[in-house]
Amino acid sequence: MKKKVVLLGSTGSIGKQVLDVIDWNRDKYEIMGLSANTNIELLRQQIHKYRPEKVAVVDESKGRKLKRLLDGKTEVLIGNEGMEDIIDERADIIFISVVGITALKPVIKSIKLGKRIALANKEAIVTAGGIIKKLQREHNGEIIPVDSEHCAIFQCIRQEKQGNVERLILTASGGPFFGKTTKELMTVSVEEALKHPNWSMGKKITIDSATLMNKGLEIIEASWLFGVPWNKIDVVIHPQSIIHSMVEYIDKSIIAQLGVSDMRLPISFALGYPDRKINRVKRLDLVEVGKLEFFKPDRTTFKALDYAYKALQIGGTMPTVLNAANEVAVDLFLKRKIKFTEIYEIIEGQMKRHVPVFNPSIEDIINIDRQIRNNLL
Amino acid sequence: MKKKVVLLGSTGSIGKQVLDVIDWNRDKYEIMGLSANTNIELLRQQIHKYRPEKVAVVDESKGRKLKRLLDGKTEVLIGNEGMEDIIDERADIIFISVVGITALKPVIKSIKLGKRIALANKEAIVTAGGIIKKLQREHNGEIIPVDSEHCAIFQCIRQEKQGNVERLILTASGGPFFGKTTKELMTVSVEEALKHPNWSMGKKITIDSATLMNKGLEIIEASWLFGVPWNKIDVVIHPQSIIHSMVEYIDKSIIAQLGVSDMRLPISFALGYPDRKINRVKRLDLVEVGKLEFFKPDRTTFKALDYAYKALQIGGTMPTVLNAANEVAVDLFLKRKIKFTEIYEIIEGQMKRHVPVFNPSIEDIINIDRQIRNNLL
Repeated sequence: MKKKVVLLGSTGSIGKQVLDVIDWNRDKYEIMGLSANTNIELLRQQIHKYRPEKVAVVDESKGRKLKRLLDGKTEVLIGNEGMEDIIDERADIIFISVVGITALKPVIKSIKLGKRIALANKEAIVTAGGIIKKLQREHNGEIIPVDSEHCAIFQCIRQEKQGNVERLILTASGGPFFGKTTKELMTVSVEEALKHPNWSMGKKITIDSATLMNKGLEIIEASWLFGVPWNKIDVVIHPQSIIHSMVEYIDKSIIAQLGVSDMRLPISFALGYPDRKINRVKRLDLVEVGKLEFFKPDRTTFKALDYAYKALQIGGTMPTVLNAANEVAVDLFLKRKIKFTEIYEIIEGQMKRHVPVFNPSIEDIINIDRQIRNNLL
Repeated sequence: MKKKVVLLGSTGSIGKQVLDVIDWNRDKYEIMGLSANTNIELLRQQIHKYRPEKVAVVDESKGRKLKRLLDGKTEVLIGNEGMEDIIDERADIIFISVVGITALKPVIKSIKLGKRIALANKEAIVTAGGIIKKLQREHNGEIIPVDSEHCAIFQCIRQEKQGNVERLILTASGGPFFGKTTKELMTVSVEEALKHPNWSMGKKITIDSATLMNKGLEIIEASWLFGVPWNKIDVVIHPQSIIHSMVEYIDKSIIAQLGVSDMRLPISFALGYPDRKINRVKRLDLVEVGKLEFFKPDRTTFKALDYAYKALQIGGTMPTVLNAANEVAVDLFLKRKIKFTEIYEIIEGQMKRHVPVFNPSIEDIINIDRQIRNNLL
């Protein structure tokens, strides 16, 4: 029996790599649904190839355009609601690779259906981790993280007793600006920030890697996914991105997951779990790599880590503010409206003036997210 | 309930470290039996401290001397039979940290009792792996390897499907002579060979590390312990000895175990398994370590690896010959009777003239072991 996959965000960087992995295993997976934001040209090719029952296009006019272009065999749903509607209870895996907080409602719907979610989105867990984990327990859902760090920790922690975990060690490449001073960061360009040394990813996450906010969000994500408090999560700079993350146990033994820097590795794991599947990812040759290095992160220059620890420690809606302010700031930076270092200033400013709501509802989270975005427009 | 431990080889390097770990957990473990080869002074102190029911001394005159020195509360057994006799069916863990093929009979007895064996001896598995694994299945015994490499693999492989294992990657420090040529090796001294860069171990195993025979024996050991054929076991030189070994899966994901170079880490694991216990081993700080390096082993100079692969491939009693010839050769080197490189010549010579017996009995193995020793005296 083929596993039925609904893939949200199929035209993005991760989405395309999910389809690569599925191409290697056409006997094991079939596509039930696809969604795109605006790129209907690529979506149309994907429809032709994978013949999904339904697709969704978030952009309404693009969605209507696609409808006119298709032969009618594939149902086209429109808008964010359309994206939620293609999550089908007959699916086995909902692969969520859309960027930003728009993933929140699809995650909630999938988890309520008790499905396996392959989660390649941080923002849903970062802003609504408590709610998602509660629903997961109630509905017996399953979240397999696709972020390479969390997928690594998931693999290192599977068989172990939670009480035996001493700390999680997230590795960070350091991004393109590792070693730079605050002064140097003030003048970096968008192009420089988009040159990630190891990973091929979307623009938003690439900028987040440059600010280290990506690692900050991962700290919050890891705390929720693995039930580990902020003071038991460490970050170490590891420029080669070969060790994808580690877990230290109470007996001082560390279990680590290693591999090449290829997102198709965690994607393959998340699709195949609990089994492992043969894939075409390059094999890691440690002799060829030669050496793995480790450095302490510079938290004074790359302030995102401290903001994340603080947001996690405060809790409530503070991580929502961190995330929303960051999303807007990164967008402004990409549009060349602010300097790189102003990303930090915007986040810090919004966090300072926020009075957090504790045990927030989904509505609270969405409202506060909207409010932060309004503050910054 | 405290776990009852019988510790064979309590005055050796590993034995003393086992008692360190037990000292940290006196509420969890109690000593039922201890054995020593000749060092009755230290054994007497251990008897005073741990109050075992029985002890064994392999050396007969030393054993009789100890009997006279004790107050009679502790039974003293003598000779290799005495060492076997202290393996008690009321024990929970038989910790076998004696060196060489003398461990074989105690291992067989323990496994027949269906006990957990914490195994810090390679030679028994290397020479009689097939028999031991068969008995383990029949008697439902448990072998937790204490060799840091195999303990690492054991931790990395625990709940994975055997069919998903692509290869085992044993790490090797390279020993004190890493980078040397055959010509340079011809003149190295016993003192130089005993200077291991990372690990504090007994003399035999330290020389084995210098020749890389230690890694060779580990290849054979790993093959039996984990049911993986010779061509799926690789060796990589990793001078820092921080990654203790790795398992690559069919999806190109590698799981590794890391820690400081302290045998009390695998000892703590083997005693506590399946739980992990807090211990006083130093915490690994990767930033302090700075870098981990990896090199291809020089199999032309350090011929022990090829001998081991060959012995494993041929099978039958060939690994027994490899092991016996090596034990004698190392002893001769330590007694300054042969040059370092003659260790290789002796092993190669014995292997070349041996006609292996397949599916050997324990008697076959013991006879061939004796015969090789006689050849070399």
